[in-house]
Amino acid sequence: MDKGWYGWAGRILRVNLTTKEIITEPLDRGLARAYLGQSGINARLLFDLTGPDVDPLSPDNPLIFGVGPLTGSLAPCSGRFTVTSKSPLTGIFGDSNCGGHWGPELKNAGYDHIVITGKAEHPVYLWINDDRVELRDACHLWGKTTWETDDLIKTQLAQPTAQVACIGPAGENLVRFAAIICNLARAAARTGVGAVMGSKNLKAIAVKGNRGMAVAEPEKFWEVVQQSVKDIQNDPLYEVASTFGTTAITGLAQMLGFLPTRNFQASVFEEAENLRGEVLLQKHVTKHKGCFNCPVSCSRFYKVEEGEYAGTLGEGPEYESITALGSKCGNGDLPSILHANTLCNRLGLDTISTGNVIAWAMEAYQRGIIKTDDDGVNKFEWGNHNAVVETIYKIALRQGLGDILAEGALRAARKLGGEDFVVHSKGMDYPAVDVRGTKGMALSFAVSPRGGDHLKGLPLYEVAPEIYQKDIKEEVGIDITPAYWAEYETKARLMSWHENWHCVVDSLGLCKLEGIAIKPLKPRHFQQLLKAATGWDITVEELEKIGDRIWNLERLFGVREGIRRQDDLPPHRLYNEPVANGPSVGEKLDHEKFEGMLDEYYDLRGWDRETGIPLRGKMLELGLEKDLDAVAGSGTVVP
Amino acid sequence: MDKGWYGWAGRILRVNLTTKEIITEPLDRGLARAYLGQSGINARLLFDLTGPDVDPLSPDNPLIFGVGPLTGSLAPCSGRFTVTSKSPLTGIFGDSNCGGHWGPELKNAGYDHIVITGKAEHPVYLWINDDRVELRDACHLWGKTTWETDDLIKTQLAQPTAQVACIGPAGENLVRFAAIICNLARAAARTGVGAVMGSKNLKAIAVKGNRGMAVAEPEKFWEVVQQSVKDIQNDPLYEVASTFGTTAITGLAQMLGFLPTRNFQASVFEEAENLRGEVLLQKHVTKHKGCFNCPVSCSRFYKVEEGEYAGTLGEGPEYESITALGSKCGNGDLPSILHANTLCNRLGLDTISTGNVIAWAMEAYQRGIIKTDDDGVNKFEWGNHNAVVETIYKIALRQGLGDILAEGALRAARKLGGEDFVVHSKGMDYPAVDVRGTKGMALSFAVSPRGGDHLKGLPLYEVAPEIYQKDIKEEVGIDITPAYWAEYETKARLMSWHENWHCVVDSLGLCKLEGIAIKPLKPRHFQQLLKAATGWDITVEELEKIGDRIWNLERLFGVREGIRRQDDLPPHRLYNEPVANGPSVGEKLDHEKFEGMLDEYYDLRGWDRETGIPLRGKMLELGLEKDLDAVAGSGTVVP
Repeated sequence: MDKGWYGWAGRILRVNLTTKEIITEPLDRGLARAYLGQSGINARLLFDLTGPDVDPLSPDNPLIFGVGPLTGSLAPCSGRFTVTSKSPLTGIFGDSNCGGHWGPELKNAGYDHIVITGKAEHPVYLWINDDRVELRDACHLWGKTTWETDDLIKTQLAQPTAQVACIGPAGENLVRFAAIICNLARAAARTGVGAVMGSKNLKAIAVKGNRGMAVAEPEKFWEVVQQSVKDIQNDPLYEVASTFGTTAITGLAQMLGFLPTRNFQASVFEEAENLRGEVLLQKHVTKHKGCFNCPVSCSRFYKVEEGEYAGTLGEGPEYESITALGSKCGNGDLPSILHANTLCNRLGLDTISTGNVIAWAMEAYQRGIIKTDDDGVNKFEWGNHNAVVETIYKIALRQGLGDILAEGALRAARKLGGEDFVVHSKGMDYPAVDVRGTKGMALSFAVSPRGGDHLKGLPLYEVAPEIYQKDIKEEVGIDITPAYWAEYETKARLMSWHENWHCVVDSLGLCKLEGIAIKPLKPRHFQQLLKAATGWDITVEELEKIGDRIWNLERLFGVREGIRRQDDLPPHRLYNEPVANGPSVGEKLDHEKFEGMLDEYYDLRGWDRETGIPLRGKMLELGLEKDLDAVAGSGTVVP
Repeated sequence: MDKGWYGWAGRILRVNLTTKEIITEPLDRGLARAYLGQSGINARLLFDLTGPDVDPLSPDNPLIFGVGPLTGSLAPCSGRFTVTSKSPLTGIFGDSNCGGHWGPELKNAGYDHIVITGKAEHPVYLWINDDRVELRDACHLWGKTTWETDDLIKTQLAQPTAQVACIGPAGENLVRFAAIICNLARAAARTGVGAVMGSKNLKAIAVKGNRGMAVAEPEKFWEVVQQSVKDIQNDPLYEVASTFGTTAITGLAQMLGFLPTRNFQASVFEEAENLRGEVLLQKHVTKHKGCFNCPVSCSRFYKVEEGEYAGTLGEGPEYESITALGSKCGNGDLPSILHANTLCNRLGLDTISTGNVIAWAMEAYQRGIIKTDDDGVNKFEWGNHNAVVETIYKIALRQGLGDILAEGALRAARKLGGEDFVVHSKGMDYPAVDVRGTKGMALSFAVSPRGGDHLKGLPLYEVAPEIYQKDIKEEVGIDITPAYWAEYETKARLMSWHENWHCVVDSLGLCKLEGIAIKPLKPRHFQQLLKAATGWDITVEELEKIGDRIWNLERLFGVREGIRRQDDLPPHRLYNEPVANGPSVGEKLDHEKFEGMLDEYYDLRGWDRETGIPLRGKMLELGLEKDLDAVAGSGTVVP
């Protein structure tokens, strides 16, 4: 271990699969100070290694893994890593953040980042055992599901405690929303990073680390850690989070009327009762489960005991997965959702985009665009859970119509028709919030640098003003009203603040479920944890500025690919059709007010109102002026 | 084209995937005269290239493709080829015969046989365009289904009329009963030759041939061809065969009580009516379909228009597939069977072994051996067609319990329990005849050199004595009675005669549906066709002796691996349990009479009654004495 580093491991691993070169190089201190680590440094590395001429599925597209300075530390919820690459789904900036135990293992092996370039001649996997790094044949693993791959690699290496991040058949088959899976159920899934891994003939990265990590001020660090854990455990939502995890949201979404149903045609679901976290807990949960060093353990192991999906085992599912494979498809059969969730994990698919593309196909079927006599089509009637399950296989194997759906809903619609009801931004499918009732999220999902996205700016607290009123006032300086979610005012400020802090949390190596930038961990926690871990004397303001820099760099990536203001609008359905049922019935996004909110957001961001391109003044402030010069005016949007 | 050859192309292609050596060598004339071609020469080549020390899934196991002297000629039903290899399912002699258009294309490219040895470092496919033969990268095809592979290869080669034989995910994942598929639905499936192909990292063999073939006496040949076509078309069963193909058997099997139901627990199926050929024809068949140069066109394209499997398209299915995926699993839902059949073709699975292993799993579930809480198990209740469909995916992907089922029913039972109700011989699952009522087939399935098998000695006519009485008398010299199927007498003679002629038909390159050795084509047709095609002045007796030689060589292969008399007994269930229902209720194989029939069969074959090893006198007669010397006393049985 490089004793000059605290927090960070201080090393980057570069692997060229074409030439088989494996190089370890020191992490640049300037880079770490400017972009923190994990998703921030990943973004910087990707920005510098790509451009509009790079096809996401070509050997030229780098696949970058990164952990943060707090990953693998005693800080609570420090099990995260990020995978970054140009997205095969959207053609723009792509990354995906993942929990479990793989990230801490990489840190323990002594690496902050892995930059993978080129393409192996035949399937390989990367085996990292501290300083011993090697590419191993993976022909025998190709075609295997993630569960079988995980097991086989550990067995063959005789390393039962190694951590394996791998792709399934979906990644191999270049499904544009394929995931990378570790610990059988933790997924780096969004933006299709698994397909990039497949395009490189890279089946897995197995890691075993024995180097450990050091913090600068151990006693101080321990004190902040203890305080942070206490603050998490004293949070009013702690019990809910550790009992239900994100599945607590299902009931809330139904109650408030933002539960996407039948491809966002409705916002409450008549069978939502079956999908609630309480039902899951009572009928299926066998045990709670946490990622590395997590005092919450929001995840759960599940089991189906009866009916046609009896025998199904798995971990999760998140609210997003329940909704994607459930209400979005009109499917109220919880066992089938658990089964489909397990299947997505085993085959290596993003549950959100998978559910959305199936929901899109069901609406296409409803509207006669997909007919019963198309090759290999199940009968796509709303709620046909057998169709959901089998279509997942077909997508992963690119079988029949699955070959078209594997391209994602937008490309499928461009081929078959029905683009108006693809609910996406910049090519990425929307998560499970009907944003017509929640204006801040409407903005957030629309402007996210990786497309339709709840994880880059998530102000979940927008929908629970009564709980978060005080915090929002203190931290963001905004006064909120009882029906805050329905308002346009102050949302630009709320969002940009959230976005900056999400960038910080994702770059530190912490989990955003607990480090959501307001509650229970707050900016001061992050600042104190980082300071004690690294010895770096940094202020809360400086930290937020780093978040701002990362956000803007990701924006510049988009600008370079042609992203402009018109790409920051909500999808057709949510922008133009009123909510069909439930508490927000009749509600729709007011064009003028949304554009006004966008103006305000651009102003706060320091972006040009007309084009959405960051302005030079702001870039000078963040030290991104050279990047602005390099990208201005260039690019075309893919797809 | 070597003008010295008529009928045969006169060349063998040898491909070593390890060294990438590709060699063309002349076909040895002595070999052709002793073993005819296709399955006969394949068997000889395999015998010489392997031994008990060769693991079927190791690079040392050769994978041999062969066509016969009549393949690709104007002779009717001349579209066949055979794939031969040591079987991953049984560990003994394995081969599988296939129709479609691939075989004739290989002949037209100027090759009788391809002998593939070694293992490619990464996935490849073989591209044969007459004298231009090359190995091409197939990394991008790995994980693809057979349909997608077929399409991609033709597109990439810009050869829309090339013929592609390929494996699907099942072969890649070394499922022990994986198939090689050509023309999307024609399968070389039994004995798991697809897994051998997968073990070699060989995804496909694409062929385009422009050399043509020549016959020795064109006018005479044309005359015999025309007569043969006329005899086929005048056959009383021609209409039935060309209307229903093998699906006509379903009704017959139910009527006579040999329709295996719920893993051979019953012999009539209460829902058999739904599975009849008439129902298939009325509800699903869109068009008839024939293989290369076939005047019968017994196959059919099908389509499912309604219900949860709406959209399913495919070709077939045969009686065997309907039964395996239907009645054997207690499944009377025809659309689900069509869907499962398509799925087996796309994923590259033997429908018979697939159906049998699922039926076995369902019985294991019935008996509590497989429980609902096992990893990834569907609820295996009889007739749960969703479980059938999903288990097919799981087997192909070796997912969860599918990983165990992918080893075949016998290995699964040895691991989990329940070996007594694996209906197999020598490790290969039984086809769809409850042989307790049909003594000749009981013998035939038990002694077949590749294990439980209806295609190496099939006397289907055993069950239709009223139609075939005259022919059996004339050709085989046996007087038969109205209930001939139930008798033990003369079956040894009937079977050995059939076996010899099956060997001939399979080595000539003709289809056994029409060249079943009695009707409509008879030994004299084969002799005349061969003589005119090759110019070889051969008699009917000499031809049968070649069949006898091939049969005995395959037996010697088994002997070398340890096969003895005790391996020639019917499976436990059929030997020891009486028929539970239907016309043959209470019937069971009489041990003494069966052993007597076996004695008689050994005597006719010239095999030792005690051990089942061929005797020296018989081997001298067939010119196999050196082979006998080489194998006697050796070997152990696998599995």
